[in-house]
Amino acid sequence: MAGKFVSERNIKFLLYDVFDIESLTNYPYFSDHNKNTFNMVLKAASKLAKDKLFPVFEEMDRSQPELVNGEVVVHPSVRDILHEYAEGGWISSIFPYDVGGEQLPSMITEVCHFIFACANYSAGAYSGLTSGAAGLIISFGNKALYDRFVPNMFSGKWQGTMALTEPEAGSSLSDIRTVAEPTDGDYYTIKGQKVFISAGDHNCVENVVHLMLAKIKGAPPGVKGISLFVVPKKRMENGQLVSNDVTTSGVFHKMGYKGCPIVQLDMGDAGDCRGWLVGEPNNGLRYMFQMMNEARIDVGLGANAMATAAYYASLEYSKSRLQGRRASEKEPTKPQVPIIEHADVKRMLLFQRAINEGALALLMQCSKYVDLLQVLPEVEKENIHLLLELLTPVAKSYPSEMGIQAISQGLQCLGGSGYCDDYPLEQYYRDARIHPIHEGTTGIQGMDILGRKVIMKNGRAFVLFQEEVVKTVQAAEAYPELLPFSKKLADALQRCRNITAHLLTVAQSQGIEVFLADAVLYLEMFGIVTIAWQWLKQGVAIQKQLGGKVSKNDLHFFTGKMVVLRFFYSYELPKISGLEERLLESDGLTVKAGTDCFID
Amino acid sequence: MAGKFVSERNIKFLLYDVFDIESLTNYPYFSDHNKNTFNMVLKAASKLAKDKLFPVFEEMDRSQPELVNGEVVVHPSVRDILHEYAEGGWISSIFPYDVGGEQLPSMITEVCHFIFACANYSAGAYSGLTSGAAGLIISFGNKALYDRFVPNMFSGKWQGTMALTEPEAGSSLSDIRTVAEPTDGDYYTIKGQKVFISAGDHNCVENVVHLMLAKIKGAPPGVKGISLFVVPKKRMENGQLVSNDVTTSGVFHKMGYKGCPIVQLDMGDAGDCRGWLVGEPNNGLRYMFQMMNEARIDVGLGANAMATAAYYASLEYSKSRLQGRRASEKEPTKPQVPIIEHADVKRMLLFQRAINEGALALLMQCSKYVDLLQVLPEVEKENIHLLLELLTPVAKSYPSEMGIQAISQGLQCLGGSGYCDDYPLEQYYRDARIHPIHEGTTGIQGMDILGRKVIMKNGRAFVLFQEEVVKTVQAAEAYPELLPFSKKLADALQRCRNITAHLLTVAQSQGIEVFLADAVLYLEMFGIVTIAWQWLKQGVAIQKQLGGKVSKNDLHFFTGKMVVLRFFYSYELPKISGLEERLLESDGLTVKAGTDCFID
Repeated sequence: MAGKFVSERNIKFLLYDVFDIESLTNYPYFSDHNKNTFNMVLKAASKLAKDKLFPVFEEMDRSQPELVNGEVVVHPSVRDILHEYAEGGWISSIFPYDVGGEQLPSMITEVCHFIFACANYSAGAYSGLTSGAAGLIISFGNKALYDRFVPNMFSGKWQGTMALTEPEAGSSLSDIRTVAEPTDGDYYTIKGQKVFISAGDHNCVENVVHLMLAKIKGAPPGVKGISLFVVPKKRMENGQLVSNDVTTSGVFHKMGYKGCPIVQLDMGDAGDCRGWLVGEPNNGLRYMFQMMNEARIDVGLGANAMATAAYYASLEYSKSRLQGRRASEKEPTKPQVPIIEHADVKRMLLFQRAINEGALALLMQCSKYVDLLQVLPEVEKENIHLLLELLTPVAKSYPSEMGIQAISQGLQCLGGSGYCDDYPLEQYYRDARIHPIHEGTTGIQGMDILGRKVIMKNGRAFVLFQEEVVKTVQAAEAYPELLPFSKKLADALQRCRNITAHLLTVAQSQGIEVFLADAVLYLEMFGIVTIAWQWLKQGVAIQKQLGGKVSKNDLHFFTGKMVVLRFFYSYELPKISGLEERLLESDGLTVKAGTDCFID
Repeated sequence: MAGKFVSERNIKFLLYDVFDIESLTNYPYFSDHNKNTFNMVLKAASKLAKDKLFPVFEEMDRSQPELVNGEVVVHPSVRDILHEYAEGGWISSIFPYDVGGEQLPSMITEVCHFIFACANYSAGAYSGLTSGAAGLIISFGNKALYDRFVPNMFSGKWQGTMALTEPEAGSSLSDIRTVAEPTDGDYYTIKGQKVFISAGDHNCVENVVHLMLAKIKGAPPGVKGISLFVVPKKRMENGQLVSNDVTTSGVFHKMGYKGCPIVQLDMGDAGDCRGWLVGEPNNGLRYMFQMMNEARIDVGLGANAMATAAYYASLEYSKSRLQGRRASEKEPTKPQVPIIEHADVKRMLLFQRAINEGALALLMQCSKYVDLLQVLPEVEKENIHLLLELLTPVAKSYPSEMGIQAISQGLQCLGGSGYCDDYPLEQYYRDARIHPIHEGTTGIQGMDILGRKVIMKNGRAFVLFQEEVVKTVQAAEAYPELLPFSKKLADALQRCRNITAHLLTVAQSQGIEVFLADAVLYLEMFGIVTIAWQWLKQGVAIQKQLGGKVSKNDLHFFTGKMVVLRFFYSYELPKISGLEERLLESDGLTVKAGTDCFID
């Protein structure tokens, strides 16, 4: 396997032309950085991705993690990769200097994670989890917890995880049963079971640090009684790491994403599992949601990365594979043409780009909001925070759901070869299916956007979103080439507004169940409008560039992207019509359908 | 693994209530059969599926075929299963008595294949291929060929295949390079290579009989120079099977559908490969298309079967898995509910049924046409033949494309468990991805329906189709419960007509490439309208039954199906709006986009 798996050209276009990352360096927090340092970081990330991650992409899939003598054995390259991550400072780079980080903007660190995930999502997952877990300790834990855990996490010696899911509580966190009992010491005694814990155990680290949800004995029922603990696999006693009574009782055999183990953990079988409380009791879910929101955006990023790599693999094949002749050519003795010359293959390639490059822009948009939250004065943060909250379920689910479709079209470009493991498409197809599931299913994201985000603060976030879209529409109106699209986006936004208003009346008249019944369709509609906005935003940046002097390569790049923009508006945006028809119906069909209608 | 994988209730509803299979027994050809014999056949098929096929569904996936010492080794149960197939007469059952068959209607044999495929698609593929290959010899070969090959195929001792695809000629059959050179004997010498040949070699049969496309030396270029040959793996000499110089040079490792090998074959490496011409020279493609058309419908059937089994697996899980509370329940101490009570889970289950049961009706419709072609007077056959031709690409692609979406939703019902191999959903997801590829990709089906079927005989087939839909609309108008749907279908048909007329003007004004550029979208739109028609047809049958006396179970069944019908019209039919917007645009976007727009 060789070849391109990511477009640095497109990344730089997004960073510099669309989202103007350089403007961040005017703020003191980011003032040590500039375009040169950003480019150096990008170059280092690309090198690591190319040299270490991509070469074992396939191999890690072929030798999935297994539980051997109570320990999960993963591909040996994980150790090397974690070492490289630590050496390069990738685990800590987003954090402030004072906790050992590099104060890099989220936009840059996310783009680097994107590059890693394009090369090998599984390999990148380990350090991403560690980084997120360390972030929770940094944000909500005390100095003692920091000292005890974070340095070893940043050095890649210890793995971090987020341990939420339990056998009887998947999406329903209020039903977790893991119990924490106070002791005389600085710790609690933990007893319970967790399932589906990513990187929850493996043999390439000395220790695993679980950021774990549990209920303190006597805590209130439901989500209000959830606390957050640090529960390590091994704890330090007299300068030695000893067992902390966390047993790996199983490793799941997954369809894909096989480079990273997902395990089942039993805590406290011997009555000797210790956990250290993070922050205040019963505030665990709130803390966890910091990590969860980042993790959700990271899932979107990972999904987008897989689909991007799949696109380049299918593009390479489509350019080199000779097959058939153009539909207008009737002479069978003429030589066969590369399949990229067939309109239907171009359609499948453009579809992939329309999804991928649109979604990547949204993910960059979210990262920009994260960066602004770091630097803006308190009073300006609220709006940015609301926008980020509103867009998080979209940033998680659109790339996940549509990335699968994009990869499927990539696979289809290869025909029978796409179904066989001589090419990487079948692996991308298997790998990507995790994304609509982990860190909150698409169903959960639907309820989040419609049942919480759109209505929070009296619909303030939704109003802000509309303002942002309108700004882009207005900016686009300066360019005649963009007028057809700015009109379509304005119309789509109006329809999105109408649908939302309609559903809010449904909530009043028919109650919450009917209101939320088609939340997933609402999310899909919202996602399409959002990506249309991001495409128009890119269109404005393109037109700005085309107004100046551009190289021949840039001209190809920009005109190519304009074709993809047109494609999105012609093939994808119209999909909101069908969704709109259903969303305006609101007959409560699925609510009213009794379970007895499934009898046959 | 245990549980339901198919609904006999729904099958009987389709056979008896919707498509009135009993009416066929009025024709002399089918007069030996009646409802009792049909039910006996169904019962036997269900027993075989349950006892022999379903138990090894998972196992056959876990031990994929491997090439060992030049022979493909498959799961040992294949031998037993082929034996059972032969014993039960399943390989020959559709053929006339005089060639060793049982003259069963296609509707019954297809439903039996469906049941087999629900239980284990891979296991059923072997005999289906043998049956199709034997059919080609029976239809177009002479008595000598029949005697030499067919009895051993019907007895399950010899495997049959269709050998079309070559390394340099996938979808472009006009470019095949396998050469047949005449000899003084009754055979030709064959030299060439074939790839992706399903069941092309394995150790559970004595011999493999390839129905192979090749070009006789000096034949005209393109598809007009293709002939059909029988090329066995071994040939009979002096009462002994000896090598026929057909070498298995590779077995493909596929993402799914692992129970059945797909191989690469080299013919004539030693200059001693013999092939026997079937029918006339240069007519091979026409002959092959008999088998191909059947095979395409069988692909649709197989896709539909996988999605059906996946539905029942996800239904079982959804009924038993407790998780969360209804959206209107705010009290976390209340017990958790089965997830089937969540509207979004019901939506995912209803989606699966809407796709599966709609598509199965279409497949039965096609089988009914096949049966009518067997018995109707010559003069009435033409119309039926045209309808079958028109609907074949839909019957192939709709269940294939939408079956994948249905299975994906089934997997989603299980959350993380759906992604792990403790449950069968991940296997269905992998298995099903072959269907939009084999026997003509969806792209090929799109060009077939729009570029050939809709316009053939001056659009006669399309006119007949509209007449059939209108008949159903009119029948539905007798039932007030169906009025909303008959109106929607009439409207959808009108839009389908408008789109078609529009595209025909595009063909005139902009040429064939722009005309066909969005053929896949046209096929998708056509598929949705077709399935809406089939749902309304079922609606009429349901209302008829509800007008009489029905048991409590039947009442559940019929009211459940009415909910699914409503679901299809509310959630699926509106999708034609988005497709319509794009199809009416016809700006040739993908035709005009140069390959240089993929530079970045």
